[in-house]
Amino acid sequence: MEMESVIVKLLEDIKPKNATLIVGLPGIGNVGKITADYLIDKMKAKKFIDVFSYHLPPQVLIGNDARAKLVRNEVYYKKRKGGDILIFTGDFQGLTSQGQYEITYRVLEICGDLDVKEIITLGGYQIGKLVELPRVLGSFTDERLKDKVEKLGVIFSKSEPGGGIVGGAGLFLGLGYELFNIPGLCLMGETSGYFSDPKSAKQVTKILLEYLDIKIDTKELDEKVKEIEEITNKIVENQPEERKEDLGYFG
Amino acid sequence: MEMESVIVKLLEDIKPKNATLIVGLPGIGNVGKITADYLIDKMKAKKFIDVFSYHLPPQVLIGNDARAKLVRNEVYYKKRKGGDILIFTGDFQGLTSQGQYEITYRVLEICGDLDVKEIITLGGYQIGKLVELPRVLGSFTDERLKDKVEKLGVIFSKSEPGGGIVGGAGLFLGLGYELFNIPGLCLMGETSGYFSDPKSAKQVTKILLEYLDIKIDTKELDEKVKEIEEITNKIVENQPEERKEDLGYFG
Amino acid sequence: MEMESVIVKLLEDIKPKNATLIVGLPGIGNVGKITADYLIDKMKAKKFIDVFSYHLPPQVLIGNDARAKLVRNEVYYKKRKGGDILIFTGDFQGLTSQGQYEITYRVLEICGDLDVKEIITLGGYQIGKLVELPRVLGSFTDERLKDKVEKLGVIFSKSEPGGGIVGGAGLFLGLGYELFNIPGLCLMGETSGYFSDPKSAKQVTKILLEYLDIKIDTKELDEKVKEIEEITNKIVENQPEERKEDLGYFG
Amino acid sequence: MEMESVIVKLLEDIKPKNATLIVGLPGIGNVGKITADYLIDKMKAKKFIDVFSYHLPPQVLIGNDARAKLVRNEVYYKKRKGGDILIFTGDFQGLTSQGQYEITYRVLEICGDLDVKEIITLGGYQIGKLVELPRVLGSFTDERLKDKVEKLGVIFSKSEPGGGIVGGAGLFLGLGYELFNIPGLCLMGETSGYFSDPKSAKQVTKILLEYLDIKIDTKELDEKVKEIEEITNKIVENQPEERKEDLGYFG
Repeated sequence: MEMESVIVKLLEDIKPKNATLIVGLPGIGNVGKITADYLIDKMKAKKFIDVFSYHLPPQVLIGNDARAKLVRNEVYYKKRKGGDILIFTGDFQGLTSQGQYEITYRVLEICGDLDVKEIITLGGYQIGKLVELPRVLGSFTDERLKDKVEKLGVIFSKSEPGGGIVGGAGLFLGLGYELFNIPGLCLMGETSGYFSDPKSAKQVTKILLEYLDIKIDTKELDEKVKEIEEITNKIVENQPEERKEDLGYFG
Repeated sequence: MEMESVIVKLLEDIKPKNATLIVGLPGIGNVGKITADYLIDKMKAKKFIDVFSYHLPPQVLIGNDARAKLVRNEVYYKKRKGGDILIFTGDFQGLTSQGQYEITYRVLEICGDLDVKEIITLGGYQIGKLVELPRVLGSFTDERLKDKVEKLGVIFSKSEPGGGIVGGAGLFLGLGYELFNIPGLCLMGETSGYFSDPKSAKQVTKILLEYLDIKIDTKELDEKVKEIEEITNKIVENQPEERKEDLGYFG
Repeated sequence: MEMESVIVKLLEDIKPKNATLIVGLPGIGNVGKITADYLIDKMKAKKFIDVFSYHLPPQVLIGNDARAKLVRNEVYYKKRKGGDILIFTGDFQGLTSQGQYEITYRVLEICGDLDVKEIITLGGYQIGKLVELPRVLGSFTDERLKDKVEKLGVIFSKSEPGGGIVGGAGLFLGLGYELFNIPGLCLMGETSGYFSDPKSAKQVTKILLEYLDIKIDTKELDEKVKEIEEITNKIVENQPEERKEDLGYFG
Repeated sequence: MEMESVIVKLLEDIKPKNATLIVGLPGIGNVGKITADYLIDKMKAKKFIDVFSYHLPPQVLIGNDARAKLVRNEVYYKKRKGGDILIFTGDFQGLTSQGQYEITYRVLEICGDLDVKEIITLGGYQIGKLVELPRVLGSFTDERLKDKVEKLGVIFSKSEPGGGIVGGAGLFLGLGYELFNIPGLCLMGETSGYFSDPKSAKQVTKILLEYLDIKIDTKELDEKVKEIEEITNKIVENQPEERKEDLGYFG
């Protein structure tokens, strides 16, 4: 038999109720993945699904103990009163357009069995310069979700981002709504896009925690922000004056 | 289950009769899409089919209200005495050769249920220079269609365009005729191909309206032509003399 | 339903006997296609199969009468005492590796119903310089075919061509032998590879005609050779002396 | 019917027992393939499976007798007390990510019928400079295999190689473990990666022979090492002094 394009390996048979699916994949400024990883870590969410696919790179990653681990996407869960939390993340996004569609579609199919009531995708919004306090932009497929997060400071802006939202952050929204009838919201943290950006991820995380009414701190993200800022400050200092302005850094 | 490569979502169950399918997709000078959009708008045609596919970009577009909309192709219809009008258009063409074939094939399959009697595809014919009055070239798979539009001024020229017709404008003609037995005609407006070209689209629109005996004006296309001409005139003025000639502009 | 990757359209229901399948596709120096086209024309072979595929370009070609013709591969036949002749040719080869395999495989499947007893593929052998009298190199999957044509002057050379034989000329041989148990032979005319090369095709044609015991002249190929030589002679004359040597022209 | 993406042709119906599958494909420094070829030759292993695929190049290779041979992957076997040896090698790896996954998956499926108890994949570890005595690094999916070869001098290093293991050497490990429950080990010989590297292959071979308790000498590999060293020594001699250091050559 031929290999399925996307293979779902169920590690534990859980029955989520009234669940919110959070999608945080590698991408612009790595905002989505940093946020997803942080939530998984701090909420002690447990992995229950591995997703393998020939649309991911043909590669194993090597761990600290020299163990080989096939690249994958994963779903974590956390039981909660009032609605469970599912978090979808992974080492890579699909390598091709078809790959990204097929992985998203397959995971959305499973969501039918996981009582997913809403999808929140996370990403970065590339603005090409450093900012002191990244804003969080939003897009949606269901007006009700928009109203809820607009109060929390999320900005819904006409035709922004101009290039739309590409990859999993866009497809979970679009396919989820059009083919699976699940309402969705995308939260995008402003980021230079030049490096992994925990500062942007922190702003996204704060809004997400407030929206979901989850009580965890963001201290460890602050530490990551400091690390990155030390590095970027050095880079900026080494730039000639006029270039500093271009970088838009005004800290 | 794996995702189908092309997914047809029927929004309304209509029963067209004796229909003409018009195909206007993004492409050279955007001539096909401008024409299709104009017809949809002025005829108040109604969308009844959405087409999603992993052959389109993995992307949602953001609307004026920040709403996310999965990229798609669409079919519109307009009831008419003597033969309904169906219009196929979309945000993008398939990203690969296989994608363009598969989307075209799937839509042609549906045409079997929609009583489509003829297909008219629209496109641009790139000539690499500006022209005052773009000609409309034609190609066909059924001689009878040729005869009808030749009277209206469409030029049928030996082996032109030399590179054939690529993309949906060619495939709807070729697959429609060879595999679905539907006669077809392609109308190509001459265009520099350097920018979106409403002047070329206007000439195509005029012939299409006459052929289909549709009474709508082309005033709003004239406005678009003016806008573009103001821009291109400025560009030409800023060219050195010898370059102007190359651009073939003699307005 | 999804489109099949390769679609075979039978135009006439013929029953070949003891047939030889000749494969001449576009490629190096266009040697294979020139030869196939010449045979079809002079033998008055008749097309009985059209092959369409999403592995071919998404394109229609425009004929002398402005008619649109979907790109395709084709099979022609000619009844003959002692064994019918089938000729496989086309506008393009498959665009990808998978495409070339799938088209070849599908045509070989049909060969099972067409009583094909041997396959002769035709191609060019690129040597990067002009030669006065192109040699014809051979490769084979069945020793008996080798013996027959070696007498006719075909050269079987150790590990030549070094890069193997790519595309349909190689795949019909390899897949035909390994999966369909049909013996095969490849005839490759030496060619500079810089342009369409009727001189090389003529040498291949002569051996093929002798092997198959077909009585047709090669006069019209001579005319094409003259046309091309007039062009290439002019090019060579306009080269500086040392470059002429590099071109290896010693006519 | 459409061509299967990977076609397994069984040449002989053997029943291996308690088998070790060794995987040595073309790749970095060609370490894996040199080792596999050496084992096949010296152990007189016999081919019993051919693997054809449209994920391999559309190509036949030409042998010493001018015979055309379709590119392929192959499985060889050698009966042995205490556990048979199977060796997987080939002319090429799959051309795409999907291709590499599909070929690996299909071969792993067959392993279910071949009583494969463990998989050892071989490869090169590119360090970008020449070394006198290449180390052999390891990675694993089952701790027990690690323990066995660590005693033999294989180095298990934290997160090395940093880029993971790509291609068949990684996928047989990862897919074998995750989807087929077969424990695996990868042995990677250090190599400059600039050319085919028998010196690195020799170190890998020695450890492999010791692990499997196979008594064959590595003399012929020494000869190949000498040949390559003569070539590389000449290249190094012709480098300016400072460049020699960069090449890290200290023989």
